[in-house]
Amino acid sequence: MNFPKNVSIKEVGPRDGLQNESEMVPTDAKIEWINMLSDSGTSYIEISSFVHPDWIPQLKDATEVAKKIKRNPNVTYAALVPNNTGLERALEVNIDEVCLFLSASQTHNKKNINKTIEETYPILESVSTESKRANKAIRGYVSTVFGCPYEGEIDTNKVIMICDNLYTMGVDEISIGDTIGVANPAQVARVLEQLLRYFPKEKLAMHFHNTRGTALANVLVAMNYGITKFDSAVGGLGGCPYAKGASGNLATDDLLYMLHRMGIITGIDENNIIDAALYIENYVKNLSSHQMKILKSER
Amino acid sequence: MNFPKNVSIKEVGPRDGLQNESEMVPTDAKIEWINMLSDSGTSYIEISSFVHPDWIPQLKDATEVAKKIKRNPNVTYAALVPNNTGLERALEVNIDEVCLFLSASQTHNKKNINKTIEETYPILESVSTESKRANKAIRGYVSTVFGCPYEGEIDTNKVIMICDNLYTMGVDEISIGDTIGVANPAQVARVLEQLLRYFPKEKLAMHFHNTRGTALANVLVAMNYGITKFDSAVGGLGGCPYAKGASGNLATDDLLYMLHRMGIITGIDENNIIDAALYIENYVKNLSSHQMKILKSER
Repeated sequence: MNFPKNVSIKEVGPRDGLQNESEMVPTDAKIEWINMLSDSGTSYIEISSFVHPDWIPQLKDATEVAKKIKRNPNVTYAALVPNNTGLERALEVNIDEVCLFLSASQTHNKKNINKTIEETYPILESVSTESKRANKAIRGYVSTVFGCPYEGEIDTNKVIMICDNLYTMGVDEISIGDTIGVANPAQVARVLEQLLRYFPKEKLAMHFHNTRGTALANVLVAMNYGITKFDSAVGGLGGCPYAKGASGNLATDDLLYMLHRMGIITGIDENNIIDAALYIENYVKNLSSHQMKILKSER
Repeated sequence: MNFPKNVSIKEVGPRDGLQNESEMVPTDAKIEWINMLSDSGTSYIEISSFVHPDWIPQLKDATEVAKKIKRNPNVTYAALVPNNTGLERALEVNIDEVCLFLSASQTHNKKNINKTIEETYPILESVSTESKRANKAIRGYVSTVFGCPYEGEIDTNKVIMICDNLYTMGVDEISIGDTIGVANPAQVARVLEQLLRYFPKEKLAMHFHNTRGTALANVLVAMNYGITKFDSAVGGLGGCPYAKGASGNLATDDLLYMLHRMGIITGIDENNIIDAALYIENYVKNLSSHQMKILKSER
Protein backbone atom coordinates (compact mmCIF):
# COMPACT_ATOMS: atom_id res chain seq x y z
CA MET A 1 0.00 0.00 0.00
CA ASN A 2 1.10 3.54 -0.72
CA PHE A 3 0.56 6.35 1.71
CA PRO A 4 1.23 10.05 1.11
CA LYS A 5 3.87 11.99 3.06
CA ASN A 6 1.53 14.92 3.68
CA VAL A 7 -2.21 15.18 4.19
CA SER A 8 -4.37 18.31 4.34
CA ILE A 9 -7.21 18.23 6.82
CA LYS A 10 -10.20 20.45 6.20
CA GLU A 11 -11.83 21.24 9.52
CA VAL A 12 -15.60 21.20 9.03
CA GLY A 13 -16.61 21.12 12.72
CA PRO A 14 -17.92 24.71 12.90
CA ARG A 15 -20.20 24.08 9.90
CA ASP A 16 -21.00 20.40 9.25
CA GLY A 17 -20.45 19.60 12.92
CA LEU A 18 -22.56 22.29 14.56
CA GLN A 19 -25.24 22.16 11.87
CA ASN A 20 -26.14 18.66 13.05
CA GLU A 21 -25.99 19.34 16.78
CA SER A 22 -29.33 20.18 18.33
CA GLU A 23 -27.89 22.84 20.64
CA MET A 24 -27.18 26.37 19.41
CA VAL A 25 -23.65 27.22 20.53
CA PRO A 26 -23.40 30.89 21.70
CA THR A 27 -21.74 33.13 19.11
CA ASP A 28 -18.92 34.20 21.45
CA ALA A 29 -18.09 30.57 22.16
CA LYS A 30 -17.95 29.78 18.44
CA ILE A 31 -15.56 32.67 17.89
CA GLU A 32 -13.31 31.65 20.76
CA TRP A 33 -13.40 28.04 19.51
CA ILE A 34 -12.57 28.93 15.90
CA ASN A 35 -9.69 31.04 17.20
CA MET A 36 -8.39 27.98 19.03
CA LEU A 37 -8.65 25.96 15.81
CA SER A 38 -6.87 28.75 13.89
CA ASP A 39 -3.91 28.33 16.24
CA SER A 40 -3.74 24.53 15.86
CA GLY A 41 -1.67 24.52 12.68
CA THR A 42 -4.65 23.69 10.48
CA SER A 43 -4.73 25.27 7.03
CA TYR A 44 -8.49 25.24 6.52
CA ILE A 45 -11.62 25.91 8.55
CA GLU A 46 -15.16 25.95 7.25
CA ILE A 47 -16.55 28.42 9.74
CA SER A 48 -20.28 28.55 9.01
CA SER A 49 -23.03 28.53 6.42
CA PHE A 50 -24.70 31.49 4.72
CA VAL A 51 -27.94 29.64 4.14
CA HIS A 52 -31.16 31.34 5.19
CA PRO A 53 -31.26 31.39 9.02
CA ASP A 54 -34.62 29.58 8.98
CA TRP A 55 -32.97 26.53 7.38
CA ILE A 56 -30.17 26.09 9.91
CA PRO A 57 -30.82 28.30 12.94
CA GLN A 58 -27.71 26.93 14.68
CA LEU A 59 -25.61 28.84 12.10
CA LYS A 60 -27.67 32.03 11.82
CA ASP A 61 -24.78 34.04 13.30
CA ALA A 62 -22.49 33.36 10.31
CA THR A 63 -21.85 37.05 9.63
CA GLU A 64 -20.96 37.91 13.22
CA VAL A 65 -18.71 34.84 13.51
CA ALA A 66 -16.91 35.68 10.28
CA LYS A 67 -16.41 39.31 11.34
CA LYS A 68 -15.17 38.64 14.85
CA ILE A 69 -12.80 35.68 14.49
CA LYS A 70 -9.09 36.45 14.48
CA ARG A 71 -7.84 35.58 10.99
CA ASN A 72 -4.62 33.59 10.83
CA PRO A 73 -2.93 34.33 7.47
CA ASN A 74 -2.00 30.64 7.14
CA VAL A 75 -5.63 29.51 7.32
CA THR A 76 -8.25 29.48 4.56
CA TYR A 77 -11.62 30.48 6.05
CA ALA A 78 -14.44 28.93 4.07
CA ALA A 79 -18.22 28.94 4.36
CA LEU A 80 -21.16 27.19 2.75
CA VAL A 81 -23.07 29.35 0.27
CA PRO A 82 -26.36 28.12 -1.23
CA ASN A 83 -27.23 31.04 -3.54
CA ASN A 84 -26.43 34.64 -4.51
CA THR A 85 -28.07 36.08 -1.41
CA GLY A 86 -25.78 33.91 0.68
CA LEU A 87 -22.82 34.89 -1.47
CA GLU A 88 -23.49 38.60 -0.88
CA ARG A 89 -23.37 37.99 2.85
CA ALA A 90 -20.21 35.87 2.51
CA LEU A 91 -18.44 38.50 0.38
CA GLU A 92 -19.38 41.28 2.79
CA VAL A 93 -17.31 39.54 5.46
CA ASN A 94 -14.57 38.56 3.01
CA ILE A 95 -14.78 34.75 3.20
CA ASP A 96 -11.69 33.21 1.53
CA GLU A 97 -13.39 30.22 -0.08
CA VAL A 98 -16.96 29.63 -1.16
CA CYS A 99 -18.44 26.15 -0.72
CA LEU A 100 -21.29 24.96 -2.92
CA PHE A 101 -23.31 21.87 -2.23
CA LEU A 102 -25.36 19.39 -4.15
CA SER A 103 -26.53 15.86 -3.57
CA ALA A 104 -25.80 12.98 -5.90
CA SER A 105 -29.24 11.63 -4.99
CA GLN A 106 -32.21 13.36 -6.61
CA THR A 107 -34.47 12.59 -3.63
CA HIS A 108 -31.93 13.75 -1.06
CA ASN A 109 -31.30 16.96 -3.00
CA LYS A 110 -35.03 17.66 -3.16
CA LYS A 111 -35.53 16.97 0.54
CA ASN A 112 -32.46 19.00 1.42
CA ILE A 113 -32.95 22.13 -0.71
CA ASN A 114 -36.38 21.63 -2.26
CA LYS A 115 -34.99 21.55 -5.82
CA THR A 116 -34.03 18.87 -8.31
CA ILE A 117 -30.37 18.51 -9.21
CA GLU A 118 -31.11 20.12 -12.59
CA GLU A 119 -32.86 23.07 -10.94
CA THR A 120 -29.86 23.52 -8.63
CA TYR A 121 -27.24 23.86 -11.40
CA PRO A 122 -28.14 27.40 -12.60
CA ILE A 123 -28.06 28.66 -9.02
CA LEU A 124 -24.63 27.14 -8.42
CA GLU A 125 -23.43 28.43 -11.78
CA SER A 126 -24.44 31.95 -10.84
CA VAL A 127 -22.73 31.69 -7.43
CA SER A 128 -19.61 30.31 -9.14
CA THR A 129 -19.47 33.13 -11.67
CA GLU A 130 -19.84 35.79 -8.98
CA SER A 131 -17.33 34.06 -6.72
CA LYS A 132 -14.73 33.92 -9.50
CA ARG A 133 -15.41 37.59 -10.23
CA ALA A 134 -14.67 38.30 -6.56
CA ASN A 135 -11.48 36.22 -6.87
CA LYS A 136 -12.62 33.54 -4.45
CA ALA A 137 -11.64 29.90 -4.47
CA ILE A 138 -14.61 27.54 -4.84
CA ARG A 139 -15.17 24.16 -3.25
CA GLY A 140 -18.00 21.83 -4.19
CA TYR A 141 -19.61 19.29 -1.88
CA VAL A 142 -21.25 16.31 -3.51
CA SER A 143 -23.17 14.45 -0.84
CA THR A 144 -24.68 10.93 -0.55
CA VAL A 145 -22.12 9.58 -3.05
CA PHE A 146 -21.86 6.23 -1.24
CA GLY A 147 -25.50 5.84 -0.36
CA CYS A 148 -28.67 7.80 0.23
CA PRO A 149 -31.20 7.32 3.03
CA TYR A 150 -33.98 7.44 0.41
CA GLU A 151 -32.48 5.95 -2.76
CA GLY A 152 -29.91 3.48 -1.41
CA GLU A 153 -26.81 3.03 -3.57
CA ILE A 154 -25.99 5.82 -6.00
CA ASP A 155 -24.71 5.24 -9.54
CA THR A 156 -21.17 6.61 -9.71
CA ASN A 157 -21.80 7.77 -13.28
CA LYS A 158 -24.22 10.32 -11.84
CA VAL A 159 -21.47 11.50 -9.50
CA ILE A 160 -19.06 11.84 -12.43
CA MET A 161 -21.60 13.93 -14.35
CA ILE A 162 -22.19 16.19 -11.36
CA CYS A 163 -18.45 16.65 -10.77
CA ASP A 164 -17.94 17.41 -14.43
CA ASN A 165 -20.62 20.10 -14.27
CA LEU A 166 -19.12 21.61 -11.13
CA TYR A 167 -15.57 21.70 -12.54
CA THR A 168 -16.94 23.27 -15.72
CA MET A 169 -18.51 26.03 -13.58
CA GLY A 170 -15.04 26.77 -12.19
CA VAL A 171 -15.13 24.79 -8.95
CA ASP A 172 -11.52 24.23 -7.82
CA GLU A 173 -11.96 21.18 -5.61
CA ILE A 174 -14.75 18.71 -4.95
CA SER A 175 -15.36 16.97 -1.65
CA ILE A 176 -16.86 13.52 -2.22
CA GLY A 177 -19.23 12.91 0.66
CA ASP A 178 -20.38 9.82 2.52
CA THR A 179 -23.13 11.84 4.15
CA ILE A 180 -24.75 8.99 6.08
CA GLY A 181 -21.58 7.02 6.84
CA VAL A 182 -22.35 3.83 4.93
CA ALA A 183 -19.23 3.61 2.73
CA ASN A 184 -17.01 0.55 2.87
CA PRO A 185 -13.38 0.34 1.72
CA ALA A 186 -14.10 -1.77 -1.39
CA GLN A 187 -16.74 0.75 -2.47
CA VAL A 188 -14.36 3.67 -1.89
CA ALA A 189 -11.84 1.90 -4.12
CA ARG A 190 -14.46 1.33 -6.84
CA VAL A 191 -15.77 4.90 -6.74
CA LEU A 192 -12.28 6.41 -6.77
CA GLU A 193 -11.14 4.21 -9.63
CA GLN A 194 -14.03 5.59 -11.67
CA LEU A 195 -13.61 9.23 -10.60
CA LEU A 196 -9.84 9.22 -11.16
CA ARG A 197 -10.38 8.21 -14.78
CA TYR A 198 -11.87 11.67 -15.33
CA PHE A 199 -10.49 14.00 -12.68
CA PRO A 200 -7.03 14.62 -11.19
CA LYS A 201 -6.58 13.43 -7.61
CA GLU A 202 -5.41 16.90 -6.55
CA LYS A 203 -8.91 18.23 -7.23
CA LEU A 204 -10.66 15.67 -5.03
CA ALA A 205 -11.15 15.51 -1.27
CA MET A 206 -12.98 12.86 0.73
CA HIS A 207 -15.62 13.55 3.34
CA PHE A 208 -16.36 10.53 5.51
CA HIS A 209 -18.71 10.07 8.42
CA ASN A 210 -17.97 7.43 11.02
CA THR A 211 -21.56 6.31 11.58
CA ARG A 212 -20.69 2.64 11.07
CA GLY A 213 -17.05 2.80 12.20
CA THR A 214 -15.52 2.53 8.72
CA ALA A 215 -14.26 6.12 8.22
CA LEU A 216 -10.58 5.53 8.99
CA ALA A 217 -10.50 2.36 6.88
CA ASN A 218 -12.02 4.41 4.05
CA VAL A 219 -9.38 7.13 4.50
CA LEU A 220 -6.71 4.46 4.21
CA VAL A 221 -8.03 3.24 0.87
CA ALA A 222 -8.40 6.79 -0.44
CA MET A 223 -4.78 7.57 0.51
CA ASN A 224 -3.71 4.45 -1.34
CA TYR A 225 -5.35 6.04 -4.42
CA GLY A 226 -3.34 9.22 -3.91
CA ILE A 227 -6.03 11.35 -2.25
CA THR A 228 -4.44 13.72 0.27
CA LYS A 229 -7.33 15.93 1.36
CA PHE A 230 -9.82 14.86 4.01
CA ASP A 231 -12.67 16.61 5.78
CA SER A 232 -13.14 16.01 9.49
CA ALA A 233 -14.68 17.63 12.56
CA VAL A 234 -13.16 18.14 16.00
CA GLY A 235 -14.32 15.45 18.44
CA GLY A 236 -16.50 13.77 15.80
CA LEU A 237 -19.09 16.54 16.07
CA GLY A 238 -22.24 16.33 14.07
CA GLY A 239 -23.99 13.06 14.65
CA CYS A 240 -26.12 11.65 11.89
CA PRO A 241 -29.48 13.29 11.07
CA TYR A 242 -30.82 9.87 10.09
CA ALA A 243 -29.68 8.03 13.24
CA LYS A 244 -29.68 10.19 16.36
CA GLY A 245 -27.02 9.11 18.81
CA ALA A 246 -24.82 7.51 16.15
CA SER A 247 -21.27 8.74 15.48
CA GLY A 248 -20.94 11.85 13.33
CA ASN A 249 -18.26 13.27 11.10
CA LEU A 250 -14.93 11.51 11.08
CA ALA A 251 -13.25 13.04 14.15
CA THR A 252 -10.25 15.26 13.47
CA ASP A 253 -8.59 13.90 16.62
CA ASP A 254 -9.08 10.26 15.53
CA LEU A 255 -7.80 11.06 12.04
CA LEU A 256 -4.75 12.84 13.48
CA TYR A 257 -4.04 9.91 15.80
CA MET A 258 -3.89 7.53 12.85
CA LEU A 259 -2.06 9.78 10.39
CA HIS A 260 0.59 11.02 12.81
CA ARG A 261 1.35 7.50 14.11
CA MET A 262 1.74 6.47 10.47
CA GLY A 263 4.35 9.21 10.07
CA ILE A 264 2.12 11.32 7.82
CA ILE A 265 2.51 15.07 8.27
CA THR A 266 -0.56 17.29 8.70
CA GLY A 267 0.95 20.37 10.33
CA ILE A 268 -1.71 20.20 13.05
CA ASP A 269 -0.94 19.90 16.76
CA GLU A 270 -3.03 17.08 18.26
CA ASN A 271 -3.05 18.72 21.69
CA ASN A 272 -4.60 21.88 20.30
CA ILE A 273 -7.35 19.85 18.67
CA ILE A 274 -8.05 17.99 21.91
CA ASP A 275 -8.22 21.35 23.73
CA ALA A 276 -10.68 22.61 21.10
CA ALA A 277 -12.77 19.44 21.52
CA LEU A 278 -12.82 19.86 25.30
CA TYR A 279 -13.85 23.49 24.86
CA ILE A 280 -16.77 22.84 22.49
CA GLU A 281 -17.98 19.96 24.68
CA ASN A 282 -19.13 22.59 27.18
CA TYR A 283 -21.82 23.48 24.66
CA VAL A 284 -22.83 20.29 22.86
CA LYS A 285 -23.72 16.73 23.85
CA ASN A 286 -21.10 14.04 24.34
CA LEU A 287 -18.56 14.02 21.53
CA SER A 288 -18.19 10.64 19.89
CA SER A 289 -14.46 10.51 19.05
CA HIS A 290 -12.33 7.72 20.47
CA GLN A 291 -9.66 10.11 21.70
CA MET A 292 -12.26 12.04 23.71
CA LYS A 293 -13.58 8.83 25.28
CA ILE A 294 -10.06 7.86 26.36
CA LEU A 295 -9.45 11.33 27.75
CA LYS A 296 -12.64 11.24 29.80
CA SER A 297 -11.75 7.79 31.11
CA GLU A 298 -8.46 9.18 32.43
CA ARG A 299 -10.06 12.01 34.41
CA MET B 1 -5.16 -3.55 -2.57
CA ASN B 2 -5.94 -7.22 -2.29
CA PHE B 3 -8.73 -8.53 -0.15
CA PRO B 4 -9.50 -12.18 0.60
CA LYS B 5 -12.74 -13.85 -0.52
CA ASN B 6 -13.32 -15.47 2.85
CA VAL B 7 -12.52 -14.42 6.40
CA SER B 8 -12.80 -16.46 9.61
CA ILE B 9 -13.97 -14.57 12.65
CA LYS B 10 -13.01 -15.88 16.07
CA GLU B 11 -15.61 -14.76 18.58
CA VAL B 12 -13.83 -13.82 21.80
CA GLY B 13 -16.71 -11.98 23.49
CA PRO B 14 -17.47 -14.65 26.12
CA ARG B 15 -13.81 -14.65 27.24
CA ASP B 16 -11.88 -11.47 26.33
CA GLY B 17 -15.09 -9.47 26.33
CA LEU B 18 -16.59 -10.54 29.66
CA GLN B 19 -13.22 -10.72 31.38
CA ASN B 20 -12.92 -6.94 31.04
CA GLU B 21 -16.49 -6.08 32.02
CA SER B 22 -16.93 -5.23 35.67
CA GLU B 23 -20.26 -7.04 35.97
CA MET B 24 -20.45 -10.80 36.45
CA VAL B 25 -22.95 -12.12 33.93
CA PRO B 26 -25.15 -14.90 35.43
CA THR B 27 -24.11 -18.37 34.26
CA ASP B 28 -27.48 -19.18 32.72
CA ALA B 29 -27.35 -15.97 30.68
CA LYS B 30 -23.86 -16.83 29.41
CA ILE B 31 -25.07 -20.26 28.32
CA GLU B 32 -28.11 -18.85 26.55
CA TRP B 33 -25.92 -16.21 24.91
CA ILE B 34 -23.26 -18.66 23.72
CA ASN B 35 -26.05 -20.82 22.30
CA MET B 36 -27.25 -17.80 20.34
CA LEU B 37 -23.70 -17.27 19.03
CA SER B 38 -23.45 -20.97 18.13
CA ASP B 39 -26.46 -20.52 15.87
CA SER B 40 -25.06 -17.41 14.12
CA GLY B 41 -22.98 -19.28 11.56
CA THR B 42 -19.73 -18.57 13.37
CA SER B 43 -17.10 -21.31 13.31
CA TYR B 44 -15.29 -20.40 16.53
CA ILE B 45 -16.19 -19.25 20.04
CA GLU B 46 -13.79 -18.80 22.91
CA ILE B 47 -16.24 -19.54 25.69
CA SER B 48 -14.29 -18.87 28.89
CA SER B 49 -11.01 -19.09 30.76
CA PHE B 50 -9.78 -21.86 33.04
CA VAL B 51 -7.56 -19.55 35.06
CA HIS B 52 -7.86 -19.67 38.84
CA PRO B 53 -11.24 -18.15 39.79
CA ASP B 54 -9.48 -15.62 42.04
CA TRP B 55 -7.75 -14.08 39.01
CA ILE B 56 -10.86 -13.49 36.91
CA PRO B 57 -13.97 -14.03 39.04
CA GLN B 58 -16.22 -13.03 36.12
CA LEU B 59 -15.23 -16.33 34.44
CA LYS B 60 -15.18 -18.62 37.49
CA ASP B 61 -18.10 -20.61 36.04
CA ALA B 62 -16.07 -21.88 33.05
CA THR B 63 -16.76 -25.55 33.82
CA GLU B 64 -20.51 -25.11 34.18
CA VAL B 65 -20.68 -22.98 31.01
CA ALA B 66 -18.70 -25.54 29.01
CA LYS B 67 -20.86 -28.40 30.27
CA LYS B 68 -24.24 -26.79 29.68
CA ILE B 69 -23.90 -25.05 26.32
CA LYS B 70 -25.41 -26.80 23.32
CA ARG B 71 -22.52 -27.80 21.07
CA ASN B 72 -22.93 -27.06 17.39
CA PRO B 73 -20.76 -29.54 15.41
CA ASN B 74 -19.72 -26.72 13.04
CA VAL B 75 -18.26 -24.62 15.86
CA THR B 76 -14.89 -24.95 17.57
CA TYR B 77 -15.30 -24.25 21.30
CA ALA B 78 -12.09 -22.87 22.75
CA ALA B 79 -11.01 -21.67 26.17
CA LEU B 80 -8.03 -19.95 27.73
CA VAL B 81 -5.77 -22.26 29.73
CA PRO B 82 -2.91 -20.86 31.85
CA ASN B 83 -1.40 -24.06 33.25
CA ASN B 84 -1.86 -27.81 33.77
CA THR B 85 -4.46 -27.34 36.50
CA GLY B 86 -6.50 -25.27 34.06
CA LEU B 87 -5.92 -27.85 31.34
CA GLU B 88 -7.30 -30.63 33.54
CA ARG B 89 -10.48 -28.64 34.03
CA ALA B 90 -10.66 -27.87 30.30
CA LEU B 91 -10.17 -31.50 29.31
CA GLU B 92 -12.78 -32.67 31.78
CA VAL B 93 -15.39 -30.70 29.85
CA ASN B 94 -13.90 -31.63 26.48
CA ILE B 95 -12.90 -28.18 25.19
CA ASP B 96 -12.05 -28.40 21.44
CA GLU B 97 -9.15 -25.96 21.40
CA VAL B 98 -6.75 -24.85 24.10
CA CYS B 99 -5.61 -21.20 24.11
CA LEU B 100 -2.29 -20.24 25.68
CA PHE B 101 -1.28 -16.67 26.39
CA LEU B 102 1.88 -14.69 26.80
CA SER B 103 2.80 -11.05 26.56
CA ALA B 104 5.46 -9.69 24.23
CA SER B 105 6.26 -7.16 26.95
CA GLN B 106 8.25 -8.46 29.92
CA THR B 107 6.64 -5.94 32.29
CA HIS B 108 3.11 -6.66 31.07
CA ASN B 109 3.68 -10.41 31.37
CA LYS B 110 4.93 -10.01 34.92
CA LYS B 111 2.03 -7.78 35.92
CA ASN B 112 -0.43 -10.09 34.20
CA ILE B 113 0.71 -13.51 35.42
CA ASN B 114 3.46 -12.71 37.89
CA LYS B 115 6.14 -14.47 35.84
CA THR B 116 8.80 -13.41 33.36
CA ILE B 117 8.41 -14.53 29.76
CA GLU B 118 11.20 -17.06 30.32
CA GLU B 119 9.49 -18.44 33.42
CA THR B 120 6.26 -18.80 31.45
CA TYR B 121 7.67 -20.96 28.64
CA PRO B 122 8.04 -24.26 30.57
CA ILE B 123 4.46 -23.94 31.82
CA LEU B 124 3.15 -23.37 28.29
CA GLU B 125 5.32 -26.19 26.99
CA SER B 126 3.83 -28.58 29.50
CA VAL B 127 0.28 -27.49 28.65
CA SER B 128 1.08 -27.88 24.93
CA THR B 129 2.45 -31.38 25.37
CA GLU B 130 -0.56 -32.51 27.37
CA SER B 131 -2.96 -30.82 24.95
CA LYS B 132 -1.39 -32.56 21.96
CA ARG B 133 -1.56 -35.86 23.86
CA ALA B 134 -5.29 -35.21 24.31
CA ASN B 135 -5.53 -34.45 20.58
CA LYS B 136 -6.51 -30.81 21.07
CA ALA B 137 -5.77 -27.94 18.73
CA ILE B 138 -3.71 -25.19 20.35
CA ARG B 139 -3.94 -21.45 19.86
CA GLY B 140 -1.43 -18.97 21.22
CA TYR B 141 -2.16 -15.36 22.15
CA VAL B 142 0.74 -12.95 22.04
CA SER B 143 -0.40 -9.70 23.61
CA THR B 144 0.90 -6.09 23.61
CA VAL B 145 2.61 -6.67 20.24
CA PHE B 146 1.89 -3.11 19.07
CA GLY B 147 2.50 -1.35 22.34
CA CYS B 148 2.53 -1.89 26.09
CA PRO B 149 1.07 0.37 28.77
CA TYR B 150 4.36 0.03 30.69
CA GLU B 151 7.08 -0.39 28.05
CA GLY B 152 5.68 1.55 25.08
CA GLU B 153 6.64 0.17 21.66
CA ILE B 154 7.70 -3.47 21.51
CA ASP B 155 10.56 -4.76 19.35
CA THR B 156 9.04 -7.03 16.71
CA ASN B 157 12.11 -9.29 16.94
CA LYS B 158 10.95 -10.23 20.44
CA VAL B 159 7.54 -11.11 18.98
CA ILE B 160 9.20 -13.28 16.32
CA MET B 161 11.19 -15.13 18.99
CA ILE B 162 8.08 -15.73 21.09
CA CYS B 163 6.10 -16.97 18.08
CA ASP B 164 8.95 -19.25 17.10
CA ASN B 165 8.97 -20.75 20.61
CA LEU B 166 5.21 -21.24 20.57
CA TYR B 167 5.18 -22.91 17.14
CA THR B 168 8.03 -25.16 18.27
CA MET B 169 5.90 -26.23 21.25
CA GLY B 170 3.20 -27.33 18.79
CA VAL B 171 0.94 -24.29 18.79
CA ASP B 172 -1.18 -24.39 15.60
CA GLU B 173 -2.12 -20.73 15.27
CA ILE B 174 -0.98 -17.50 16.90
CA SER B 175 -3.19 -14.50 17.50
CA ILE B 176 -1.14 -11.29 17.32
CA GLY B 177 -2.69 -8.92 19.84
CA ASP B 178 -3.03 -5.15 20.02
CA THR B 179 -4.09 -5.45 23.65
CA ILE B 180 -4.40 -1.73 24.37
CA GLY B 181 -5.62 -0.64 20.94
CA VAL B 182 -2.73 1.60 19.91
CA ALA B 183 -1.83 0.00 16.56
CA ASN B 184 -1.84 2.07 13.39
CA PRO B 185 -2.03 0.72 9.84
CA ALA B 186 1.60 1.53 8.93
CA GLN B 187 2.76 -0.32 12.04
CA VAL B 188 0.54 -3.31 11.22
CA ALA B 189 2.15 -3.41 7.78
CA ARG B 190 5.66 -3.24 9.27
CA VAL B 191 5.00 -5.93 11.89
CA LEU B 192 3.34 -8.27 9.39
CA GLU B 193 6.12 -7.82 6.86
CA GLN B 194 8.55 -9.01 9.52
CA LEU B 195 6.39 -11.86 10.84
CA LEU B 196 5.56 -13.17 7.37
CA ARG B 197 9.26 -13.61 6.63
CA TYR B 198 9.27 -16.38 9.21
CA PHE B 199 5.74 -17.74 9.52
CA PRO B 200 3.02 -18.69 7.01
CA LYS B 201 0.03 -16.35 6.94
CA GLU B 202 -2.34 -19.28 7.53
CA LYS B 203 -0.89 -19.70 11.01
CA LEU B 204 -1.48 -16.08 12.04
CA ALA B 205 -4.60 -14.30 13.26
CA MET B 206 -4.95 -10.66 14.27
CA HIS B 207 -6.54 -9.45 17.48
CA PHE B 208 -7.32 -5.74 17.41
CA HIS B 209 -8.95 -3.49 19.97
CA ASN B 210 -10.74 -0.36 18.82
CA THR B 211 -9.64 1.88 21.69
CA ARG B 212 -8.43 4.61 19.33
CA GLY B 213 -10.76 3.86 16.42
CA THR B 214 -8.14 2.25 14.17
CA ALA B 215 -9.19 -1.42 14.39
CA LEU B 216 -11.00 -1.68 11.05
CA ALA B 217 -8.23 0.21 9.24
CA ASN B 218 -5.77 -2.26 10.77
CA VAL B 219 -7.91 -5.21 9.62
CA LEU B 220 -7.82 -3.79 6.11
CA VAL B 221 -4.03 -3.68 6.05
CA ALA B 222 -3.77 -7.18 7.51
CA MET B 223 -6.13 -8.53 4.83
CA ASN B 224 -3.95 -6.88 2.21
CA TYR B 225 -1.09 -9.02 3.61
CA GLY B 226 -3.19 -12.15 3.22
CA ILE B 227 -4.33 -12.55 6.83
CA THR B 228 -7.82 -14.08 6.93
CA LYS B 229 -8.41 -14.72 10.63
CA PHE B 230 -9.57 -12.00 13.00
CA ASP B 231 -10.65 -11.99 16.63
CA SER B 232 -13.60 -9.84 17.63
CA ALA B 233 -16.25 -9.57 20.33
CA VAL B 234 -19.99 -9.07 19.95
CA GLY B 235 -20.96 -5.42 20.46
CA GLY B 236 -17.36 -4.38 21.13
CA LEU B 237 -17.50 -5.94 24.61
CA GLY B 238 -14.54 -5.64 26.89
CA GLY B 239 -13.47 -2.05 27.23
CA CYS B 240 -9.85 -1.32 27.97
CA PRO B 241 -8.41 -2.09 31.40
CA TYR B 242 -6.07 0.89 31.01
CA ALA B 243 -8.74 3.42 29.96
CA LYS B 244 -12.13 2.79 31.53
CA GLY B 245 -14.95 3.94 29.27
CA ALA B 246 -12.91 3.61 26.09
CA SER B 247 -13.92 1.25 23.28
CA GLY B 248 -13.04 -2.39 23.75
CA ASN B 249 -12.42 -5.33 21.45
CA LEU B 250 -13.06 -4.77 17.78
CA ALA B 251 -16.83 -5.35 17.60
CA THR B 252 -17.93 -8.43 15.65
CA ASP B 253 -20.92 -6.47 14.34
CA ASP B 254 -18.72 -3.60 13.06
CA LEU B 255 -16.31 -6.06 11.48
CA LEU B 256 -19.19 -7.92 9.80
CA TYR B 257 -20.64 -4.65 8.51
CA MET B 258 -17.39 -3.81 6.77
CA LEU B 259 -16.50 -7.29 5.50
CA HIS B 260 -19.95 -8.17 4.18
CA ARG B 261 -20.35 -4.81 2.38
CA MET B 262 -16.96 -5.48 0.81
CA GLY B 263 -18.33 -8.77 -0.50
CA ILE B 264 -16.16 -10.86 1.82
CA ILE B 265 -17.78 -14.06 3.08
CA THR B 266 -17.72 -14.92 6.79
CA GLY B 267 -20.62 -17.38 7.04
CA ILE B 268 -22.03 -15.36 9.94
CA ASP B 269 -25.51 -13.85 9.98
CA GLU B 270 -25.29 -10.18 11.04
CA ASN B 271 -28.80 -10.23 12.48
CA ASN B 272 -27.94 -13.09 14.81
CA ILE B 273 -24.92 -11.18 16.08
CA ILE B 274 -27.02 -8.06 16.68
CA ASP B 275 -29.55 -10.21 18.58
CA ALA B 276 -26.71 -11.64 20.68
CA ALA B 277 -25.42 -8.11 21.37
CA LEU B 278 -28.88 -6.94 22.43
CA TYR B 279 -29.18 -9.96 24.69
CA ILE B 280 -25.85 -9.52 26.51
CA GLU B 281 -26.53 -5.80 26.92
CA ASN B 282 -29.10 -6.74 29.53
CA TYR B 283 -26.18 -7.74 31.73
CA VAL B 284 -23.29 -5.39 30.94
CA LYS B 285 -22.81 -1.65 30.54
CA ASN B 286 -23.39 0.11 27.24
CA LEU B 287 -21.79 -1.71 24.34
CA SER B 288 -19.48 0.47 22.28
CA SER B 289 -20.02 -0.84 18.75
CA HIS B 290 -21.22 1.53 16.04
CA GLN B 291 -23.96 -0.84 14.90
CA MET B 292 -25.39 -0.94 18.43
CA LYS B 293 -25.38 2.86 18.66
CA ILE B 294 -27.31 3.11 15.40
CA LEU B 295 -29.77 0.47 16.54
CA LYS B 296 -30.42 2.30 19.79
CA SER B 297 -30.91 5.56 17.91
CA GLU B 298 -33.65 3.93 15.86
CA ARG B 299 -35.65 2.73 18.84
